[in-house]
Amino acid sequence: MASQSIVLEESSSSGLSPKYAGLAVNAVRLMSTLDAACGWGSTPDGGMNRLSLNNDDKKVRDWFIEETAKYGCHHKVDEMGNIFAIRPGQNNSLPPIGLGSHLDTQPTGGKYDGILGVISGIEVLKVLHQHQITSYAPVAVVNWTNEEGARFPPAMLCSGVWGGAFTVPWAHARAELEGHTTLKEELQRIGYLGTTPCSYAANPLLAHFEVHIEQGPILDKAEQAAAVVKGVQSIRWYNVQVTGREAHTGTTPMESRSDALLGAAKMIVATNQIVTEGELFERGGRATIAVINSMPQSINTIAGNVRLGLDIRAPADSDVELIESLCKKRFQEVCDEHGLKMEFDNFWVSPALNFDPTMVQCVRDSCSSISCNGKELVSGAGHDSVYTSRKVPTAMIFVRCRDGVSHNPTEYSRPEDCAAGAQVLLGAYLRYDELVRKSTEAKI
Amino acid sequence: MASQSIVLEESSSSGLSPKYAGLAVNAVRLMSTLDAACGWGSTPDGGMNRLSLNNDDKKVRDWFIEETAKYGCHHKVDEMGNIFAIRPGQNNSLPPIGLGSHLDTQPTGGKYDGILGVISGIEVLKVLHQHQITSYAPVAVVNWTNEEGARFPPAMLCSGVWGGAFTVPWAHARAELEGHTTLKEELQRIGYLGTTPCSYAANPLLAHFEVHIEQGPILDKAEQAAAVVKGVQSIRWYNVQVTGREAHTGTTPMESRSDALLGAAKMIVATNQIVTEGELFERGGRATIAVINSMPQSINTIAGNVRLGLDIRAPADSDVELIESLCKKRFQEVCDEHGLKMEFDNFWVSPALNFDPTMVQCVRDSCSSISCNGKELVSGAGHDSVYTSRKVPTAMIFVRCRDGVSHNPTEYSRPEDCAAGAQVLLGAYLRYDELVRKSTEAKI
Repeated sequence: MASQSIVLEESSSSGLSPKYAGLAVNAVRLMSTLDAACGWGSTPDGGMNRLSLNNDDKKVRDWFIEETAKYGCHHKVDEMGNIFAIRPGQNNSLPPIGLGSHLDTQPTGGKYDGILGVISGIEVLKVLHQHQITSYAPVAVVNWTNEEGARFPPAMLCSGVWGGAFTVPWAHARAELEGHTTLKEELQRIGYLGTTPCSYAANPLLAHFEVHIEQGPILDKAEQAAAVVKGVQSIRWYNVQVTGREAHTGTTPMESRSDALLGAAKMIVATNQIVTEGELFERGGRATIAVINSMPQSINTIAGNVRLGLDIRAPADSDVELIESLCKKRFQEVCDEHGLKMEFDNFWVSPALNFDPTMVQCVRDSCSSISCNGKELVSGAGHDSVYTSRKVPTAMIFVRCRDGVSHNPTEYSRPEDCAAGAQVLLGAYLRYDELVRKSTEAKI
Repeated sequence: MASQSIVLEESSSSGLSPKYAGLAVNAVRLMSTLDAACGWGSTPDGGMNRLSLNNDDKKVRDWFIEETAKYGCHHKVDEMGNIFAIRPGQNNSLPPIGLGSHLDTQPTGGKYDGILGVISGIEVLKVLHQHQITSYAPVAVVNWTNEEGARFPPAMLCSGVWGGAFTVPWAHARAELEGHTTLKEELQRIGYLGTTPCSYAANPLLAHFEVHIEQGPILDKAEQAAAVVKGVQSIRWYNVQVTGREAHTGTTPMESRSDALLGAAKMIVATNQIVTEGELFERGGRATIAVINSMPQSINTIAGNVRLGLDIRAPADSDVELIESLCKKRFQEVCDEHGLKMEFDNFWVSPALNFDPTMVQCVRDSCSSISCNGKELVSGAGHDSVYTSRKVPTAMIFVRCRDGVSHNPTEYSRPEDCAAGAQVLLGAYLRYDELVRKSTEAKI
């Protein structure tokens, strides 16, 4: 964790400073900003198609700079096109506290994924501006480039560069998924190849808050508008190769078979059982097989080879390891029963991420202040905050979305839920800014 | 069943006529004929690659005519290139009794599939010739064109034309699977576009016997050299479409999913259970899912659509219907449990085929005479005899093959097992010829 991390001396971030009592976001204004931010790249079905660095992304970037300038911001654009809209504070020797997310979308995306986080940050600026508040540290609303990775894989590319996961030259050279241009060429073309170095060291933030739709159904089922996100799940991905023996479906008796697809099916069922029964279910373990390739795909030839893609997740690394070992054991039993061979290859590991406890406590207290404290979540998906958390104290706020649907034109969050997310952001940010003031003044 | 069918008056085809006592095939000569018949199109790995109507097929056809001519045969080549090597009998007003199979192979085939049936017929000719026997009815060894269908789909094409399943113009127009030429063009090119009409009516047989390797492991496990084949299984093929809901594997709790691949896996397991437990297993029911297509094939997106290919077989049509109904019921239960939808489409039906009881009894008695009567089989795969049985009394003899492996260079039947098959053919054919004599003379 970075050196700026503030350690709470008490169990709470304490209440909001009395001078900020009653400060509230404006839900109507917030939704009006959302409409404005969706003014380029919207689709007739109510969704969005704004791939990173296309002409619509240029237009919304221009709008973002123009809009945030109205509330006292100056701007930095870095080498990856990340835009920092910085509103000065009382102590401008400090890096700004970041309120960030992304304005790019999936090709068949919705109006909320990413966009809600940026406009929630803008709403915080508006509240500060409206009440003529100068925060202690500067505040920066950040638009991270190419979070979706839909045009230039991988996802979270430019927050990743800032957080040290990728180098600038490597990221600049990323090629369009369906096309021939590179990310750098597109940054140049639309005028967003900035001069600020893209790195935490050269262009630091003090902390990073991010509002995002949940992209899952937990808050919708719990009828809770928003929630603190304590961290990101532990994830591991595997290839499982199952080898049996091809044989004729008509001439091979049931008892003489080594059916790789039957074995694979039993593995899929076993995987599901492991995480839907007992303690692993209670602790949020998830395991899914969603990729299957069977050979030779002939209706009258028993499958001889099946490859499965296995995705295991849990809040705790130890539970991912436990699920992995249970899968291995059960899969081997299936192989023994059916005369199959197995290769079990773990090709990707993403350890569990716990957000900064002080940041999380600020969000938790802010959630409590508007009675959004029933559920506390662990993110199942990646966000820009995964990479900012490598360098600076980070926490997230999830907003309820209908049926958990995302990456889809029908993605929807109610205005009151969007407002709740922005309100939690405002309160959490102001609490943290106050902690920064106390911590800094104590050092002086 | 065709009008030539002979109905046994007793429960047995009766023993072999005393005049034929002690007649035996010559195992060494039989294997030498097999080697000769594999002289064109053999592969370095010990297998065969002799696609129908290629240059190697032309050469083996030329050999077949030359070889059978040595034992008193004249020849008819029909419009589909089927070759009938006819050895006259005492009563040449009768159509010949056919002993047929095929000389074409799969591209990675073995030396036995099809070829063993033709050379077993030639061995019968040699025994008759050696002992100067003139049978009652004429006998015809038949080489059916394009049984494999590997070059010109579908399989069993030219016995199918003879049996009335396909028309000559349609069959002539069949295009090469990988190429541009038609079957008729290739018949012309290699000189085997005959003038005899390809139809049962114009060029009848009195009956059809076929020796074939089992292509399954039952006889090998039972250590039985050969067996009577009583008929061909009932077969039905289905497409099953399972629809769930795509969702993120990381953000979607286990209890909120409609996972189409999990449902499909449970269907695969249920299908196997239905035919491996209880009476359906005892009655030889088989059900296999060997085709699976899952969408969208992304490791972190729960499958929304899965298509399965289901193959159900049993000796009795009623058991195939029972398995179908049990599958439907169990699949629907899976759908109900997981919030899935299902379409269940039966796109192909091939009813059970029972070979002619008199022909089967002749084979059975011949099997008994050499103690090959432990197992009686039902064919799980199609053969030329499926189509001949539409028009004339037909029965088959299966020969043990190692591990049930076929359509593979390692396909293998021991010389003693091949000889047993030819011996059963000889005995069954002579028994049937004797029944024809008795039946014909009784009518006179």
